[in-house]
Amino acid sequence: MVTPRTLSGFKDRLPKEAYAKSKMLQSIVQSFEKFGFAPIETPHLEYAEILKKQGSDEIQKEMYHFLDHGEREVALRFDLTVPLARFIAQYKNEVGIPFKRYCIGNVFRGERAQKGRYREFTQCDFDFIGTDSIGADVEILQVIYQSLFDLGLRDFTIHINNRKIFNGLMESLNASNHTIEVLRIIDKIEKIGKESVKQELQNKTPLNLDSIAMLLDFIAKIQKGSALELLKELEAFRELNHTLKSGIDELSTLCKILDPLIPAKFYKINLSIARGLGYYTGIVYETTLNALPSLGSVCSGGRYDNLTQNFSKDSLSGVGASIGLDRLLSGLEELNLIQSDKNVADTLLIPLHSLEYGYKVAQSLRDKGLKIEVFPEITKPKKSFNYANNKGYKFVVITGEEEEQQNTCTLKNMESGEQFNHLQLEAVINAIKS
Amino acid sequence: MVTPRTLSGFKDRLPKEAYAKSKMLQSIVQSFEKFGFAPIETPHLEYAEILKKQGSDEIQKEMYHFLDHGEREVALRFDLTVPLARFIAQYKNEVGIPFKRYCIGNVFRGERAQKGRYREFTQCDFDFIGTDSIGADVEILQVIYQSLFDLGLRDFTIHINNRKIFNGLMESLNASNHTIEVLRIIDKIEKIGKESVKQELQNKTPLNLDSIAMLLDFIAKIQKGSALELLKELEAFRELNHTLKSGIDELSTLCKILDPLIPAKFYKINLSIARGLGYYTGIVYETTLNALPSLGSVCSGGRYDNLTQNFSKDSLSGVGASIGLDRLLSGLEELNLIQSDKNVADTLLIPLHSLEYGYKVAQSLRDKGLKIEVFPEITKPKKSFNYANNKGYKFVVITGEEEEQQNTCTLKNMESGEQFNHLQLEAVINAIKS
Repeated sequence: MVTPRTLSGFKDRLPKEAYAKSKMLQSIVQSFEKFGFAPIETPHLEYAEILKKQGSDEIQKEMYHFLDHGEREVALRFDLTVPLARFIAQYKNEVGIPFKRYCIGNVFRGERAQKGRYREFTQCDFDFIGTDSIGADVEILQVIYQSLFDLGLRDFTIHINNRKIFNGLMESLNASNHTIEVLRIIDKIEKIGKESVKQELQNKTPLNLDSIAMLLDFIAKIQKGSALELLKELEAFRELNHTLKSGIDELSTLCKILDPLIPAKFYKINLSIARGLGYYTGIVYETTLNALPSLGSVCSGGRYDNLTQNFSKDSLSGVGASIGLDRLLSGLEELNLIQSDKNVADTLLIPLHSLEYGYKVAQSLRDKGLKIEVFPEITKPKKSFNYANNKGYKFVVITGEEEEQQNTCTLKNMESGEQFNHLQLEAVINAIKS
Repeated sequence: MVTPRTLSGFKDRLPKEAYAKSKMLQSIVQSFEKFGFAPIETPHLEYAEILKKQGSDEIQKEMYHFLDHGEREVALRFDLTVPLARFIAQYKNEVGIPFKRYCIGNVFRGERAQKGRYREFTQCDFDFIGTDSIGADVEILQVIYQSLFDLGLRDFTIHINNRKIFNGLMESLNASNHTIEVLRIIDKIEKIGKESVKQELQNKTPLNLDSIAMLLDFIAKIQKGSALELLKELEAFRELNHTLKSGIDELSTLCKILDPLIPAKFYKINLSIARGLGYYTGIVYETTLNALPSLGSVCSGGRYDNLTQNFSKDSLSGVGASIGLDRLLSGLEELNLIQSDKNVADTLLIPLHSLEYGYKVAQSLRDKGLKIEVFPEITKPKKSFNYANNKGYKFVVITGEEEEQQNTCTLKNMESGEQFNHLQLEAVINAIKS
């Protein structure tokens, strides 16, 4: 006898939660497809060398890799981006450039187990490859907004930044070589506060006190106000150098195009968003649920250069984002925005006399568009009615001997106990639908 | 530089094929849910001991297993049934019995690579656990029929057998101990023919010539005719022993209930279907596409006892089946029953003058229910029109400078070259929808 259990960091989903997740996935797919994103599939398992030297050192340590039956070194994917890069390098002529795709799938990271962090989780990625146009940035942001809106969310913020602004600022401080360390520290400002960030910048980077003050001042100045107000504030920095100019101009164009597309309250410019450190090179974004700031970003992304550089000489850039579905699901549950107690079926049919008649009635109801579960046994009513109560069905359809003789059925309200006897099918359908 | 490639036996799916597969999955999920089946999720990775000693020796050899970061022996699931058994043993009180669920996911088997056989493939399982009622057998068969019908199939056969009939026959030949070997040989009758089966039975089993003749005669007798005709033929064997009687009676009840539910041409009794050898214990079935017999079964299943015996003292029986999605997809492609060349978007919008206006028009079209792809660059028309042609769009929407001034757009037929200039949005929507 083996003790039934899952590996630490791995999760089963019971029906009601899995059903809620599956409904979310359907909605997300529909949102992606409104913009013409098409799905692709890549395997869960790849040659380890495809995945190696990609992502951060931490991700590399967390990678599940092993020797397969043919002594090949193989690994489970840790994200959907590296397989995308491999895919693009392999099929770019077949799929055509520019190329946009979505991919929904599970990824694996042997992280230290902690609350809300899993070693297998679902990502919903959407990327637009092979174009430098700001149009791609616009569209990825539109898809984020549309996907969350279609899921019923009305109170979230997409925080937008451009990595070039920070890079330009570092250039003007003659500290370009320290961009990554500084970003890593700045990135913690929401978590640890301004004073601790200041301390860390002093201790861990060669920036002098003036530079640190200027940096923090810059960030403070541009943390409040609408996108348009912030762009005005930024104007003052525009002429410092070319990188800053180009970063500010891109944000400016982006906001101009976004203006009629996404209501202003759903996005803002937030220059403390750093995203992925070494990885992104242009406009980046994170998305938070306003009622649950501690949940962290539920959808992040941005523009990257050289996606395919490890696999192909002609490297392609792109823009992409990823919805963290499991995190989003837990957020929606916390906000009561998801019916995670809903049965799949509209109602349960309990045959009391013959299976034959019960199944026939159930199928007739299905043919009229209802989802019908049938209790599969002719048994003591106590057993089947307990089953109905445990599953939380408010109404059940009953087919007994009399109903069979009259070609009718009975509807019972499980809460009040009220019964409506010997109804015609049409009446049952109307009652259940209302 | 790493050569971009997949592992042997693993497959990428390009957008049009992945889109077709995703549409199939949506349809299958809807069919499952008509009957109130709810989804569950279990991890791709399990403790190896959960999966060991399950399935055939072959499957065990093909299992991907390795040591994880914590030196645990872990394995990739090779089917969705063993994880289901573990799941039921773990949560049966929470989910309630009887329990029905579907589960769609990828499974992994390090099989010898051969045409049409993959090491990672998608299974769509649906099972009804914890009831001995024939109602569960009825419902699983209904779901098979409904799922394939909803996918547009109109020419398939569900072959139904009851393992008890064969077991009863072996009892009457005093050869119960050899049931599995004999079944293994009989199972090949469609592939290798009657004579070879006869030879193998002589060489590899202790059955004498009379017994072999009786067996083959029995099988031949009941291979043709409708379910009801065959049941009549079987009557003659009904009194041989209790097992045969119970097997025949079950099939008889099953067919009586199925009669008003599934048109007769879609199922037949076929006593040469053996399914899974040691595994199933009652009614079993396979499903073939009549136009593609060589494809093999696209949906198989049956009744099993003791699903949870390795994990729990109170063992539960059940009925279940599995749609082999990848095989079915290749079948539908071969039969031209699937549009695997379809774009996700209804049309492509090409902005010739400003991205701002192009994206605004695209969003207005989306708000009216259309799926719109936008070419993301203001570029030479040759580039964007080539893109449209390569993707096979029949119509494109164009927004140039004049259109922007007049708040209109132009529709172009890519096949005829015909253009409809300066249309109002409503006119474009009507044109695309028709």
